[in-house]
Amino acid sequence: MATHNQHKIGELRQILSGLLEAGEVIGAGEAGAPDVAETGVTFAQNALLKARAVAAHTGLIAVADDSGLAVDILGGAPGIFSARWAGRHGDDTANLTLLLEQLADISPEHRRARFVCAAALATPDGAEVVEHGYLPGVLLTEPRGNGGFGYDPILVPDGQHRSCAELSPAEKNAISHRGQAFRALATHLGPLLG
Amino acid sequence: MATHNQHKIGELRQILSGLLEAGEVIGAGEAGAPDVAETGVTFAQNALLKARAVAAHTGLIAVADDSGLAVDILGGAPGIFSARWAGRHGDDTANLTLLLEQLADISPEHRRARFVCAAALATPDGAEVVEHGYLPGVLLTEPRGNGGFGYDPILVPDGQHRSCAELSPAEKNAISHRGQAFRALATHLGPLLG
Repeated sequence: MATHNQHKIGELRQILSGLLEAGEVIGAGEAGAPDVAETGVTFAQNALLKARAVAAHTGLIAVADDSGLAVDILGGAPGIFSARWAGRHGDDTANLTLLLEQLADISPEHRRARFVCAAALATPDGAEVVEHGYLPGVLLTEPRGNGGFGYDPILVPDGQHRSCAELSPAEKNAISHRGQAFRALATHLGPLLG
Repeated sequence: MATHNQHKIGELRQILSGLLEAGEVIGAGEAGAPDVAETGVTFAQNALLKARAVAAHTGLIAVADDSGLAVDILGGAPGIFSARWAGRHGDDTANLTLLLEQLADISPEHRRARFVCAAALATPDGAEVVEHGYLPGVLLTEPRGNGGFGYDPILVPDGQHRSCAELSPAEKNAISHRGQAFRALATHLGPLLG
């Protein structure tokens, strides 16, 4: 798959494990694929850019995602900029710390947000599909939990009392934006893999 | 006026100079007014919070503004969070540097933004007015110019070739979001001052 993010590769292996044989999921790094500039202006465009590049480089069917956190009071930002919210040298902790500081004066009723995932599939002969998944919830004022990655410690999904970082991987994958998007994508992947 | 920002006080004195006698504009700090938590979720709410607090504290007619930069591809963010974009210890340079890093991969056709100002007036007996002003343009990839403050060095207004920080104060005030909003507000202020 078209990502160099080890967290995502692990999560994807789990999500797709019921649908594919384990050996079939290889990371973009293992495949020797170069990093792709994410010049799109939507999650779907960026996911397709990545999947296309890996399919072209490897000659294999490639899947990729672009995901992020969309905060209502920020008009959907950080959005496609989620991974670089604190700047190009930021990491997960810097990104979520900055977001919490930006929203410091904002009360719970205005802290709605959702995780968004666009999952893309591209084949070497040019077929393309994109599916989306969404996980809506409320932002905390302090991070909670040690699981997951990214903004997981600050979003409590609707219907939960725990942050995404307090859910087990299986619990998270069952409801997550990425789980939804890749399960939808897998319905296209199965027929392609014969 | 309800601001502790010396840049804004200077700009306001200029904008209002044709409309009021010079001695009539005093800063919130000079008036001994405390800082107000900006808990609103719109520019107008925050401007009113500040104007109300100063009117209550001083017994005088108070004007205040809340202003910021709304970037299209960020869904209107930084918006009301413009002054703390890089976190609570950030300054103008940190804020615009972070914004440029977030948008580093974004091409000129997707770099539209506008300055927004809500100017509020509050009287000690509870009368309130809010007027808005907008300055649309395109974001640069590097700051240009030494004038102005805030995000001025990175916005080129429509119809201009210079950034807001390359305009003279008089040129900027003639077209700026803050100039528009306060000139509109002044039409209400004149009658109140009798």
